[in-house]
Amino acid sequence: MHPQFETYLQTHTNLTANDIALVSSMATLRVLKRNESVLDAGDICKHKTFVVSGLLRNYGASADGSEHILRFSPENSWTLDVESYDKQEPSVINISAIEPSQVLMWSKTDFQHLLVNVPALKELAEQLIANNTYYSSQRMLTTLSASAEERYEDFIQRFPNLLARLPLRMIAAYLGISLKTLTRIRHAQLTR
Amino acid sequence: MHPQFETYLQTHTNLTANDIALVSSMATLRVLKRNESVLDAGDICKHKTFVVSGLLRNYGASADGSEHILRFSPENSWTLDVESYDKQEPSVINISAIEPSQVLMWSKTDFQHLLVNVPALKELAEQLIANNTYYSSQRMLTTLSASAEERYEDFIQRFPNLLARLPLRMIAAYLGISLKTLTRIRHAQLTR
Repeated sequence: MHPQFETYLQTHTNLTANDIALVSSMATLRVLKRNESVLDAGDICKHKTFVVSGLLRNYGASADGSEHILRFSPENSWTLDVESYDKQEPSVINISAIEPSQVLMWSKTDFQHLLVNVPALKELAEQLIANNTYYSSQRMLTTLSASAEERYEDFIQRFPNLLARLPLRMIAAYLGISLKTLTRIRHAQLTR
Repeated sequence: MHPQFETYLQTHTNLTANDIALVSSMATLRVLKRNESVLDAGDICKHKTFVVSGLLRNYGASADGSEHILRFSPENSWTLDVESYDKQEPSVINISAIEPSQVLMWSKTDFQHLLVNVPALKELAEQLIANNTYYSSQRMLTTLSASAEERYEDFIQRFPNLLARLPLRMIAAYLGISLKTLTRIRHAQLTR
């Protein structure tokens, strides 16, 4: 029913064809315009979301309107606010589309049902949590220890496919540097 | 055999007395001097570690000798380098004692055996991973969005019991600010 998602599961898990059909059948497709959100700060995160196409971001917004980006989620990745989802408490972050996107969404009840009944899906979920933990730790270490230049270099190495798809202000908001600093770094790279 | 750890399990889990005795029996007690390490960068993290008393830190060291702190682990908390432990690959971080400490350690083989055989221990492990995920996300958002003053205030609120036990340079290394900036912030607070 959702061929791209089914290909993703075939590639990343040991799910049987029956299990893939089951997981896929419980998803709802949602088409997002650019800047459309799937979660607003203050609301409860009620869904697990898989990005079929496009690009989303998880971000916090300060009182002055500035944006601080926790995560980019391109096609073939998952997103949610895990604390809000687990505790069913209001989220402090927003999730919205950077590009026109298609996402699949599962309610928490349905997804928990799937996790109990499809062990290979639970394995995938645990692997995704682990990868997220590894990356969070690496990112915090880089944020604490590296210069703005080094953080930008690290970003380029890690997300080469995102670079051309992101406005500079969002890369700056992910790295925790000003747009002015990022522009200076890029200019220095181009002219060196 | 390790009364303080057994009290911790009684308080934080639904483990039976038999299970508590089993988990406890597979731990090895290690006594650490101040600055003694349980993991050095480049080595493989082979143990889950529970801090019975004292205080440890997880940190990365830059080529210039500066230190960047990922985590403080006081009594009644757990520590490891999760990526090195999971993958059995060399760690990029160090774990060492800030105060004279006593820790309990389980080999990966033994701990995995316990996780399979003691479901309530697996629940505890999953809860600790989740709490760590929530906090990592909050910390990253604070690091990206808040001023040095706000980050210090947040640290005080979150870890009131650690404040008097930590040298200022370590608080600065955790917040990602210079010792000079931290000293200025504290001075401004005292005189306001």
